[in-house]
Amino acid sequence: MICVGKTGERFYSDAAAEYAKRLGGYCKFELREVSEARLGASPSAAEITAALADEYRRMKIPPRAYVVAMCVEGEELSSEQFAARIARLTVDGVGQIVFVVGGSYGLAEELKRAAQLRLSMGRMTFPHALARVMTAEQIYRALSINAGAKYHK
Amino acid sequence: MICVGKTGERFYSDAAAEYAKRLGGYCKFELREVSEARLGASPSAAEITAALADEYRRMKIPPRAYVVAMCVEGEELSSEQFAARIARLTVDGVGQIVFVVGGSYGLAEELKRAAQLRLSMGRMTFPHALARVMTAEQIYRALSINAGAKYHK
Repeated sequence: MICVGKTGERFYSDAAAEYAKRLGGYCKFELREVSEARLGASPSAAEITAALADEYRRMKIPPRAYVVAMCVEGEELSSEQFAARIARLTVDGVGQIVFVVGGSYGLAEELKRAAQLRLSMGRMTFPHALARVMTAEQIYRALSINAGAKYHK
Repeated sequence: MICVGKTGERFYSDAAAEYAKRLGGYCKFELREVSEARLGASPSAAEITAALADEYRRMKIPPRAYVVAMCVEGEELSSEQFAARIARLTVDGVGQIVFVVGGSYGLAEELKRAAQLRLSMGRMTFPHALARVMTAEQIYRALSINAGAKYHK
């Protein structure tokens, strides 16, 4: 999972760390943070585009990874559908999945186009520190569902 | 905001408490907890229905309040649309809004029918302790948007 920006409040970093720990039981999970590109108080569209492109470049996403871009305009899946999608990837031999959670300006268009899946967690906007907790929880939930574990009920 | 069940992990109760505190700047906010009705490991549908009805009864929702039932099958609004909805209620003279977040079996059908708004935060299932943080954050975001504050950016 690659996240842009600071972890935010302590409770959010603690929550994300907890899911990262639990995910270790199911996969080799790594949370990588990329610093948010600096922007003034009222950046222009061009400045935002350049900042997002710079963040994308610095993510250094492995070329063969399956990329899931978390974005509000993406596909909405239920937790069960999301779990099934992950299970199918594993069957198809995908060895590495990268989930990308953007910063306050979202993700570069180029990244969203390149991603194999654009995934939406609904139409509401959440602070990115909370969005990363939600994403980590859904990954954990998906792997629990696929493992037939009790957690998800 | 009325929630069913325990607050869950410390980081979730801390997060909910933080939004409760911030909401105090915009409204008289109260978080009330109702204990989850006890059920066995594999309850029947009738047992679940009875448990949810019991939880609903114990919520003691004020009769004149505007009730928002948080449920996956509800209406999906963007944060801005949700804020506009809240603003309109205020104009219409609604003095009290009750948000209800259910426990692991959700909410009583009777409650959902009686609610003025069924609100969905997307198709994914989140643990109820996280759902209450998400709900509190969205209420705070809505009131910030309506106040023209910087938070929501």
